[in-house]
Amino acid sequence: MSSAGPRAANGARLGEVGRIQTLLAPLATSPGALGLTDDAALIDPPAGSELVTTVDAMIEGVHFLPDDPPDLVARKLMRVNLSDLASMAAKPLGYLLTLGLPSRCGDDWVERFAQGLAIDQQAFGMTLLGGDSVSTPGPISLTLTAIGYVMRGRAVRRAGAKPGDLVFVSGTIGDGALGLLAATGRLPDLDAAAWGWLADRYRLPRPRCVLGQALGAHAAAMIDVSDGLVADLGHITAASGVGAVLDAAKVPLSEAAMAVLARDPGQLATVLTGGDDYELLFAASPEQAEPIRRLAHSLGVAVAEIGRIETGRGVRVLDEKGAVIPLDRPGWQHC
Amino acid sequence: MSSAGPRAANGARLGEVGRIQTLLAPLATSPGALGLTDDAALIDPPAGSELVTTVDAMIEGVHFLPDDPPDLVARKLMRVNLSDLASMAAKPLGYLLTLGLPSRCGDDWVERFAQGLAIDQQAFGMTLLGGDSVSTPGPISLTLTAIGYVMRGRAVRRAGAKPGDLVFVSGTIGDGALGLLAATGRLPDLDAAAWGWLADRYRLPRPRCVLGQALGAHAAAMIDVSDGLVADLGHITAASGVGAVLDAAKVPLSEAAMAVLARDPGQLATVLTGGDDYELLFAASPEQAEPIRRLAHSLGVAVAEIGRIETGRGVRVLDEKGAVIPLDRPGWQHC
Repeated sequence: MSSAGPRAANGARLGEVGRIQTLLAPLATSPGALGLTDDAALIDPPAGSELVTTVDAMIEGVHFLPDDPPDLVARKLMRVNLSDLASMAAKPLGYLLTLGLPSRCGDDWVERFAQGLAIDQQAFGMTLLGGDSVSTPGPISLTLTAIGYVMRGRAVRRAGAKPGDLVFVSGTIGDGALGLLAATGRLPDLDAAAWGWLADRYRLPRPRCVLGQALGAHAAAMIDVSDGLVADLGHITAASGVGAVLDAAKVPLSEAAMAVLARDPGQLATVLTGGDDYELLFAASPEQAEPIRRLAHSLGVAVAEIGRIETGRGVRVLDEKGAVIPLDRPGWQHC
Repeated sequence: MSSAGPRAANGARLGEVGRIQTLLAPLATSPGALGLTDDAALIDPPAGSELVTTVDAMIEGVHFLPDDPPDLVARKLMRVNLSDLASMAAKPLGYLLTLGLPSRCGDDWVERFAQGLAIDQQAFGMTLLGGDSVSTPGPISLTLTAIGYVMRGRAVRRAGAKPGDLVFVSGTIGDGALGLLAATGRLPDLDAAAWGWLADRYRLPRPRCVLGQALGAHAAAMIDVSDGLVADLGHITAASGVGAVLDAAKVPLSEAAMAVLARDPGQLATVLTGGDDYELLFAASPEQAEPIRRLAHSLGVAVAEIGRIETGRGVRVLDEKGAVIPLDRPGWQHC
């Protein structure tokens, strides 16, 4: 981790170098990280592999709430990147991190942030490879570059869906967007259990790393649901040069989301277009349906069939009677 | 490049997706970048290579001046990372970028920023692999993750210097720090030519990519001069478990820096400790001195011998009579 930039932010007892040595270097468990003492890190890719790399930025007040706990912010930052790796069927290797911190973020903030990273490194097989820490007069600005690998030619892309393929999604959809509404007080009638479930799903995504890697052998096209279910299916159809039908009634919902919809059916649009679900959305040929069901069962992850790929373009969302559900933000407008 | 995050900043005619498709996708010239349409990019490492990766963040008002031209900011961001790759003897491959932009940065800002990236991609053999673009209520916040490669085991690290090695540096030292003083009006007596030279050196580093790769066969330890010559030599001695002597009179200076020192000898401390030079500082055995001189000559890059590695620890800076020059910020305090 470079020590360039201001040497010590206000509120930093340890100073910039001390923070790196004391709080962040213990996260650099790979020999290639060189203990964060060099200008760059080394990655020795497994034989026959391609590296897969992605980056996401999170800004305080835009992508997380100012009072979100630092450890949860760290884990969300890592997990949204892990979800991108999962959607390419990649296995995680390591990450680089930049912290842009205002002076009010003292050593305690960095320590709690590092604790969050430590938990998820362990959970997902990641290791800190390097980074940069700078002061900023603005809001907390974080970026994480995640690096993973696939065997050469085995990455699953957005392109690759064919007419006749089935569309599947993991987990439940809508909890992320409803969780943001819950966490910001916009679902006041919710009972405590449902509130807690949804807010937690917003704060802490569950990237489908193991499922994603296993789907490398089955999926024709894949994406993670971050922009919203309809928009992300639209990304697949646009990249693949096809259209898709989505059966809204088949979209898997949590009990909490069902409770919200029972009170306010208008929230269906939030569920279908809200985003931040970090589930895997993928197309696969009908012959793969049974192997995929067995795989999901063996991993203990729910996978639901929710639609099909067809010729044409764009995404049509149908209700259980086959009528098109109009949406203000249909997915294909984002492609 | 993910389209997660707010869809369109104010002042963005093109919108977030349009900016990526129109202004940034043309920079993604590698097949592995997948046209910036996927969740992650693919890198197929050359056979027998290790990847080398580094990241730097730059914040408006901290690392660049608010009225710096966007194309120069982009090139500086790329070049400080290229300098880190050079210091490991790595050849550049590609980069990931995050843009955290306030609403006042319209399409024009992004277009000029992309123009700067395009120029330096061409010059240094880089290609955009992916990134993220988000809005921020704070200052412009930029990060660039650079990825390069070396043949396995051939990276040059900070550790590796041995007593008896000679210390070399490329180019001239002090121009970056004096350039910041010049650009911010703190060297008022300077003539226009010297002012222009120094300000340009501050705004646009010259990473020693070709020299760095070639030094992989000669250098025992290497770093780029970003924290300051004495501090960075201190990083080498600390990592290598040795000491060093630096002969201040041998430190290569530009004519502009000599003009500043002629008027104000007190600026010697700025030259020796100021940083932002992005030259290569390295240790090599005396038998390598002649091959290094021939290499530097053939590449048309000045390389000067400025000191030697000894037993002990820390860096002693000597004047031409052999007396220690006291410095407020000696390098070894940063290690």
